[in-house]
Amino acid sequence: MRISELSAATGVPVPTIKYYLREKLLPEGTRTSATQASYDEVHVQRLRVIRALVDSGVSIAETRNVIAALDAPPPTPYELLGVAHAAVAPPAEDGIDTAAAEDLFTQLGGKPESCDPAQLAGLAHALRNVERAGFRIPPDVLAAYVAAARLIAEAEIAGIPTDSAESVVRYVVLGTVLPEQVLLALRRVAEQVVSAERFGAD
Amino acid sequence: MRISELSAATGVPVPTIKYYLREKLLPEGTRTSATQASYDEVHVQRLRVIRALVDSGVSIAETRNVIAALDAPPPTPYELLGVAHAAVAPPAEDGIDTAAAEDLFTQLGGKPESCDPAQLAGLAHALRNVERAGFRIPPDVLAAYVAAARLIAEAEIAGIPTDSAESVVRYVVLGTVLPEQVLLALRRVAEQVVSAERFGAD
Repeated sequence: MRISELSAATGVPVPTIKYYLREKLLPEGTRTSATQASYDEVHVQRLRVIRALVDSGVSIAETRNVIAALDAPPPTPYELLGVAHAAVAPPAEDGIDTAAAEDLFTQLGGKPESCDPAQLAGLAHALRNVERAGFRIPPDVLAAYVAAARLIAEAEIAGIPTDSAESVVRYVVLGTVLPEQVLLALRRVAEQVVSAERFGAD
Repeated sequence: MRISELSAATGVPVPTIKYYLREKLLPEGTRTSATQASYDEVHVQRLRVIRALVDSGVSIAETRNVIAALDAPPPTPYELLGVAHAAVAPPAEDGIDTAAAEDLFTQLGGKPESCDPAQLAGLAHALRNVERAGFRIPPDVLAAYVAAARLIAEAEIAGIPTDSAESVVRYVVLGTVLPEQVLLALRRVAEQVVSAERFGAD
């Protein structure tokens, strides 16, 4: 199909598709003349993935890393997770105090060798932002966060497909990045449900 | 204290403080001359809250709404939650299909009157972004998300303080907005812990 048809099939405007081509997010089409190229179903699928990532707030540079992991996956699901996490985790400052984060890591059942220091630093960064605002998450609430994170991760890791390497890659990379906004939205709705039970919605 | 001292006490640069003053995020100081004003502990606390919100990715306009809720809170925790949620929830398009979101709402134990349509639309929007990428969250994983959201919300709502109206407002508004990044970071760390248990970190 031509670029105009690719645009019609995905709802992504032609100038945006050209931008993704220049940014190497989308592979080039097959040249059919000096000024035209032909695109196929691979481009349609890839464009949908790019749009979902960008709409989820993932930057262009991070989207490129996620796409690269889809094309040339690292050998184990654990390493794949590292790529997906690096794409969504905000960069943490060097030298941040990770003591509180390490404590939560231990509560999650973590062994020293099983967590990327960048992810611990990311958790430490998030905790420090809360603390800097003068807000303290009550211990019972923090314990619920830990239990909820473990519950989520167990279901997610148990759900890793076994049918093909490609579906493992898609599941780990996209399943890590894309559901974040679903989780936050579900928490908000749950807060409204429980708050209405306790205080009434009127 | 002078604006330079307020900057030193909070680590926020003077031009940024002046920007927050112009944007009405920070109340004006007490005029001490035609060109100078004096600031106090209220400004220090308020600046810390603003920085934490902005660092958490909340926009200036939304930060203004959160600050306004701290200054003039609505009468019930349920309504307060609505203000906090509106600040962090991305605006949802009109006319989005909310059937899947309503199904999750029911699984959370929700009654028709207990959820803001904007929050349901926000959940529907998040679900649609995932689906558009051609990714499907497995039913067991989605069920774990629902259980985790309910677990989190119950602990959070049970933890609403009872000592003063001011602490209720701070808890609900800041406790809704600020821990989002903590939750996402905890999920990532939990995924690494469980993945290492199952696949090994080497």
